[in-house]
Amino acid sequence: MAAATSAATLTRLDQWPGLVNADGQRWHYLDSAATAQKPKVVIDAVTRALGADYATVHRGVYTRSAEMTLGYEAARRRVAALIGGAEHELVFTRGATEAINLVAQSWGLANLKHGDRVLLSQLEHHSNIVPWQLIQDRTGIAIDVCPLTEDGRIDLDAAERILTPAHKLVALAHVSNVLGSVLDAKRAVALAHGVGAKILLDGCQAVARLPVDVASLGCDFYAFSAHKLYGPTGIGALWAKAEILDGMQPWQGGGSMIDRVSFERTTWAPAPQRFEAGTPAIVEAIGFGVAAEFVAGIGLESIHAHEAALVRQARAELGRFNSVRLFGPDDSAGIVSFAIDGVHPHDLGTILDEENVAIRAGHHCAQPLMEHLGVPATARASFGIYSDESDIAALVRGIERTMRIFG
Amino acid sequence: MAAATSAATLTRLDQWPGLVNADGQRWHYLDSAATAQKPKVVIDAVTRALGADYATVHRGVYTRSAEMTLGYEAARRRVAALIGGAEHELVFTRGATEAINLVAQSWGLANLKHGDRVLLSQLEHHSNIVPWQLIQDRTGIAIDVCPLTEDGRIDLDAAERILTPAHKLVALAHVSNVLGSVLDAKRAVALAHGVGAKILLDGCQAVARLPVDVASLGCDFYAFSAHKLYGPTGIGALWAKAEILDGMQPWQGGGSMIDRVSFERTTWAPAPQRFEAGTPAIVEAIGFGVAAEFVAGIGLESIHAHEAALVRQARAELGRFNSVRLFGPDDSAGIVSFAIDGVHPHDLGTILDEENVAIRAGHHCAQPLMEHLGVPATARASFGIYSDESDIAALVRGIERTMRIFG
Repeated sequence: MAAATSAATLTRLDQWPGLVNADGQRWHYLDSAATAQKPKVVIDAVTRALGADYATVHRGVYTRSAEMTLGYEAARRRVAALIGGAEHELVFTRGATEAINLVAQSWGLANLKHGDRVLLSQLEHHSNIVPWQLIQDRTGIAIDVCPLTEDGRIDLDAAERILTPAHKLVALAHVSNVLGSVLDAKRAVALAHGVGAKILLDGCQAVARLPVDVASLGCDFYAFSAHKLYGPTGIGALWAKAEILDGMQPWQGGGSMIDRVSFERTTWAPAPQRFEAGTPAIVEAIGFGVAAEFVAGIGLESIHAHEAALVRQARAELGRFNSVRLFGPDDSAGIVSFAIDGVHPHDLGTILDEENVAIRAGHHCAQPLMEHLGVPATARASFGIYSDESDIAALVRGIERTMRIFG
Repeated sequence: MAAATSAATLTRLDQWPGLVNADGQRWHYLDSAATAQKPKVVIDAVTRALGADYATVHRGVYTRSAEMTLGYEAARRRVAALIGGAEHELVFTRGATEAINLVAQSWGLANLKHGDRVLLSQLEHHSNIVPWQLIQDRTGIAIDVCPLTEDGRIDLDAAERILTPAHKLVALAHVSNVLGSVLDAKRAVALAHGVGAKILLDGCQAVARLPVDVASLGCDFYAFSAHKLYGPTGIGALWAKAEILDGMQPWQGGGSMIDRVSFERTTWAPAPQRFEAGTPAIVEAIGFGVAAEFVAGIGLESIHAHEAALVRQARAELGRFNSVRLFGPDDSAGIVSFAIDGVHPHDLGTILDEENVAIRAGHHCAQPLMEHLGVPATARASFGIYSDESDIAALVRGIERTMRIFG
């Protein structure tokens, strides 16, 4: 954090109910890349929205519904502002996965045809692979896979060689959920636009770890979830350039996304409402807005610096073990993946759990990356606003104990 | 309620934070068909799941994640049990709207082709019209519209005359969201199956108002949302017969719905996981399960009897005004739509709001039904578990005041 005092406040357990374990002690939670714990201000906002403030939006003629509608639309504004976007460019979705599927099935089916090419990378999360494979099955597009550099970044020199005018879309992770490697997003945008392709950034890990400004990046689509950004589950967002969103046809039909329905002819509401069929995730949107404001209040520069320092420390301490193999670049954004010779990551995870430390062990929904790394799984420690040196110390102690057991 | 004591408990304001207005008084909330207020037990479960119990599901090797997974799957079991279904037949969706769109875009696109026919009714909610129109645009199917009886029920005699072997799907509201009319679902299922068609029931209003047993109904698909069932926003469910669900291809791609991902060949997880791409609405599912258990604990027979009594009373009292026109059948399930000569429903809603009474005024996402009724909008009062005679008395007082103003 920028100041020691704010760091102290931000790691206070009474502000993070999820960081307290069953014994009332600090839980060394190192799985924030899977999902972040929630600050009390978000939990309180959800509790209030589901209770004393509860009403539907966009429809009620009574005051509380009108207030809830204002709150819902204010949340849209706050979430859009966090990434430098405008509110009319932001669609609330079920999560980042739905956001990418929405692009694939609305923009993709209308704009991709047999012979067109899409460029992904070797380190993509399944949520940025499978939606395009489903479109491939239906349209006959080709999918190219951008390789990685030695230290686990998307190799944009290779991307430059691969890209042709047949490429209509480039879809890349802004930050790798396994390696923490940060994409040079401005260069990726320039390369995509250079051949006339649109570019989608999967921002799930980036929004919580880096300052993101879609306007200065110049990207076309930006997808992210709330639950990794200290917000509720069940909601995420797609940001898209207004002119692209305005041209997209609806994907799901239902209430709220229409202008006029008749059995003869139905017409659509403007974007973003056109893509929000049905009663929205009202309470979750309110919580998402509070989370966005909370994170903006701390500042992504500070959060990034805080996590980068923890990554440096963790990599230095893990690097002292001869049997530990570290993956990814040294300047990873808050995420450290590693393996220990002769210890399966799941066994490590289980022993660490006994030591009150939570890491993730597995393929992290990135099986093509595991194949590239030549491992079935990695152990992953990932940090958040609330992480501190005591978490790294506990991780190291747990690894030492694991090595003694497997020694 | 069955017993006076339980009724007294169930309407206690400290159990329903949303029923307290800004002055600390009982809010006469008559918009439960739009969305239900939440009992404290649901709000507390959400608060805990987002705080002290929070972790991701299906992935973590640590204890709290394993416990959260158990809770998530227990919620699936509880929600399925509420409608007499099995857990492996229940898919969590963003809401009822997504549930219907899932059927349309997965089952529908695979099974409906040019020349096939789908039967809907004149009283369907937009969420059970527009998804089929989107499929119509892509496949060239024909949509038939079942007319209504004089008192506002889906006319199954007419349906019997309309249905032919060209009909592959019948999709009907189990309970009308505007009129409260209850479908004879068993007969509708027999009629659909008689011509070899599948049948989907939109159960949004029914699950909170009637005992529902999909096994004895024999339907193929059943869609409903949590937020109308005293549960959280942002989640709903699709129940489908196992053999149908097992045969359906995925609609959205991402994490958790795969067996194995590679750029050469990706394979799918079994249902229902195949349809739950991405990190699920974990906290919302937990709350949905608690809501289902809460409602089952009271008993849908009791809830139905409670609301039916309120409907009878409301219709009797509103019927004493010469200028009030009542829509729908006398045995409506908890919903009363009406119009007052010379008073626009929105004006009525606004004046009632000043009197601490919340009704809905509008087309209720059922514009084709409005056209049938010959009105642009109706006023709608709808009841829930917590509704009582004081709410009806407040409504009547508000209507009397409105009539004096417009007199």
